Amino acid sequence: MSTSTYEKHLCPVAQALVDLGDQWTLLIVRDALSQKQIRFNELQESLGISRNLLTRRLVQLVEAGILERVGVEGSKRLAYQPTDKCRDLRLVILAMASWGEKWRPDPRLTRVETTRKSTGAPVELAFVDPDGARVPLSDVRVTRRRP
Amino acid sequence: MSTSTYEKHLCPVAQALVDLGDQWTLLIVRDALSQKQIRFNELQESLGISRNLLTRRLVQLVEAGILERVGVEGSKRLAYQPTDKCRDLRLVILAMASWGEKWRPDPRLTRVETTRKSTGAPVELAFVDPDGARVPLSDVRVTRRRP
Repeated sequence: MSTSTYEKHLCPVAQALVDLGDQWTLLIVRDALSQKQIRFNELQESLGISRNLLTRRLVQLVEAGILERVGVEGSKRLAYQPTDKCRDLRLVILAMASWGEKWRPDPRLTRVETTRKSTGAPVELAFVDPDGARVPLSDVRVTRRRP
Repeated sequence: MSTSTYEKHLCPVAQALVDLGDQWTLLIVRDALSQKQIRFNELQESLGISRNLLTRRLVQLVEAGILERVGVEGSKRLAYQPTDKCRDLRLVILAMASWGEKWRPDPRLTRVETTRKSTGAPVELAFVDPDGARVPLSDVRVTRRRP
């Protein structure tokens, strides 16, 4: 499936899908958002995909400005860290997680929990009026909890 | 990429991606959510993909319980209509649309607007406290507006 076909669709959903590529991309983003920076080997272990495929997806994510390559302190290794463009994908990932929890329920699933950093209280994704109260994204922490 | 690989990931995001398949799936869902029911030819015209590929994706969406095949009133034709499982994808689609509008801005893009059915006033997707005010999903209308 070629990216150029999507690009013809003048729709923000189609445009988002140009950058998000295939499903591995979103799983890489999910992992990258779970810690300050993440190394190639950690991603490979978490996802269980081939080194070649992971390398290609990471190159695309860096080109798209979603991940940044950075040095690891006290080591010669490189790691990947999320940019603001990546952090803004939290809403997409969390909307998917709640849908997956509701429609493909499985007691073995990791739970995705969203809480306020400041108080630890849970927060939820919802539609609100433009002047309605909301929790700022900077105060939202996403945690994955094993059952 | 095989579905069975995703299924090993005990994470609701990965589980959601099992059903959502590739990006065409989400674009079909987007189109199906925009009207009460939609016919094969309307989808093909909107997406510009091959009849074969569209047929395969529709079969998967019906099997996953996201679309239903229904008769068109006063005709022998069949159409597809969204189920509750599909309607619950509005949050995912809208989260993607706002991300696409912010990070791949293009004045030619269709705008995705969310308003209250009851008043026509705009609504936004946000994090809220569990007891915070929210607009019920049944009162949210999604409109695509050409520039």
